[in-house]
Amino acid sequence: MYQYNYLFDFTRSVFMKMGCSENDSIIIANVFLAAELRGHASHGMIRIMDYYELWKAKRINTTPLVKIVHESPSTAVVDGDNAVGMIAARRSMEIAIEKAEKAGTGWVATRNSNHFGIAGYYSMMALEHDMIGICMTNANPLVAPTFSISRMMGTNPIAVAIPAMNQPPFIADFATTPIARGKLAVAEKKGEKVPFGFVQDKDGSPSDDPTILKRGGSMLTLGGDRLHGSHKGYCLSAIVDIFSAVFSGANFGPFVPPSVAFLPVPDKKTGEGTGHFFGAMRIDAFQPANEFKAKMDEWIETFRSAKPAKDQERVLIPGDPERESEERIMREGIDLVPAIREDLIEIAEKLKIDFVIS
Amino acid sequence: MYQYNYLFDFTRSVFMKMGCSENDSIIIANVFLAAELRGHASHGMIRIMDYYELWKAKRINTTPLVKIVHESPSTAVVDGDNAVGMIAARRSMEIAIEKAEKAGTGWVATRNSNHFGIAGYYSMMALEHDMIGICMTNANPLVAPTFSISRMMGTNPIAVAIPAMNQPPFIADFATTPIARGKLAVAEKKGEKVPFGFVQDKDGSPSDDPTILKRGGSMLTLGGDRLHGSHKGYCLSAIVDIFSAVFSGANFGPFVPPSVAFLPVPDKKTGEGTGHFFGAMRIDAFQPANEFKAKMDEWIETFRSAKPAKDQERVLIPGDPERESEERIMREGIDLVPAIREDLIEIAEKLKIDFVIS
Repeated sequence: MYQYNYLFDFTRSVFMKMGCSENDSIIIANVFLAAELRGHASHGMIRIMDYYELWKAKRINTTPLVKIVHESPSTAVVDGDNAVGMIAARRSMEIAIEKAEKAGTGWVATRNSNHFGIAGYYSMMALEHDMIGICMTNANPLVAPTFSISRMMGTNPIAVAIPAMNQPPFIADFATTPIARGKLAVAEKKGEKVPFGFVQDKDGSPSDDPTILKRGGSMLTLGGDRLHGSHKGYCLSAIVDIFSAVFSGANFGPFVPPSVAFLPVPDKKTGEGTGHFFGAMRIDAFQPANEFKAKMDEWIETFRSAKPAKDQERVLIPGDPERESEERIMREGIDLVPAIREDLIEIAEKLKIDFVIS
Repeated sequence: MYQYNYLFDFTRSVFMKMGCSENDSIIIANVFLAAELRGHASHGMIRIMDYYELWKAKRINTTPLVKIVHESPSTAVVDGDNAVGMIAARRSMEIAIEKAEKAGTGWVATRNSNHFGIAGYYSMMALEHDMIGICMTNANPLVAPTFSISRMMGTNPIAVAIPAMNQPPFIADFATTPIARGKLAVAEKKGEKVPFGFVQDKDGSPSDDPTILKRGGSMLTLGGDRLHGSHKGYCLSAIVDIFSAVFSGANFGPFVPPSVAFLPVPDKKTGEGTGHFFGAMRIDAFQPANEFKAKMDEWIETFRSAKPAKDQERVLIPGDPERESEERIMREGIDLVPAIREDLIEIAEKLKIDFVIS
């Protein structure tokens, strides 16, 4: 088990050794550790090796100049200068919040960025400003549209954070596929099958094989099949892709560059890097903030008191599981699986940083 | 078979007889007929009886004063004055477009409204202004959150319309449930079962019975069950509810009033009427409009040329099925099922309007 602060300091040191400023390294460590705390280890320490390899391959810029390239009172397009995704994303969300202060809402499309960790992190930045925060990103293609076997889209997540008064905030943060890709890797490592409805084989037949992506298979969109609404998951994922990439001038759909160095950059470019989209909506551009937040308390209490189905203990509010995970992991520590520990040991040796096996 | 113009004129006459202005009646007829043309008959002529009954019960205002009650440069809250939903919704979307002209984007939350037909109609209003249009609405509760058996949410649709250059626009318009409620009614009339994953019984057990809602059952969110991501459908539906109702001051979740007169208005109110949410994003607040639209052509062509799965002919772009339906129905006419024809005959008699049996 590792304490939060230990892994935070380690992560900051790794990125400083790779040439990031101390400020940037702190931002990056914050986002990685937020993923661990919130129970999304698939977006946490496991990704540091990916970034290290991208840096070694000179495919990422650790001294970027993130800047606005186009704007209106409530919008901006940001060029991330091929930064570590967290740096481009955090600055973009700050700009969305600044726009919202003046115009009521702020909307930023970001190009030339990279994998940014958990979308929820940036949406939550809005909460302390009494704003609703929105974040989405495209990602390297693994997912087939309805009726197709071509990998055209990423797992393209959407995050929305909404403040309340005495209740904890409503925080939705979800991929537009039935599962995150990480769950396939976990099932593969355990030698288990996955339920039908997550993936299909190279011909488009249903599959329960978590390794099928290695043999021409693809992930399915939320809904699973056409009968159960996969075309709605396809719509959602496509909207995320268009807002993130076509608004910003990033690569869209099948042309999004991979977030790992062992995969080549696609030959064809339709823009610059990976794309994100951010929104901030000032509550009091709609309702007095205290009235809105009191109403959100009422909303949350109403939904939390919905009647559970048989065999279920309780009905959850979006954000409940992650908040409970945060409290538990902050108390108990972060448990790294051996493969990730070995990655971190290797990085520590190469970059001459201490890393204790714990 | 009925020609478009015949049913358009009839619908306009019905609403004029109910006291709506000619302008308002034309708007209402436009939206009803757009639903028929786009293949969403569940939101078309079948709903006229519902509005007629609400009007007879004095539960709807046919001479409303729809007005802005709060605003910022990029936002407004609109009070629909208990109007026919189309009137409040169309005016709200116009305001969103006006805001976007100046501030880059415009966002309007509307309260004190009623059922507004198809969400896609309002999102498409943005297209001719070179804007992206967004529309969502809450609706009377039929849907249970994940792990629950309580009907807490409507089928809460989301519509997003995105312009292209030479390609037809991208138009997504979908309920945040696997199916629209109308499909249950169709299966019931045919005496057929429905696939598992659409509804559950009063205890939360899977059901294939389309009549289960009459015996304490509920609809499921997109995803179907927790394993396949129903919590993501729950997040989406909840976001639609909060944006539509908490931002605007309408009734949220289980307190949304029914859109039919034979169901009583809930005892408890958490706001005024039904709530909607509208967005307009000026393309050139992000990219020169022609560059964006050319890139959308490329996006659409790329996705349309994705490889179909075996047994599939082609991969669709959101909006393709509805556009093809429009072309076909405009040519062939609108086929009303006997039950709807009888409703219209009854309304015609009561309001002293001609209606030909065709």
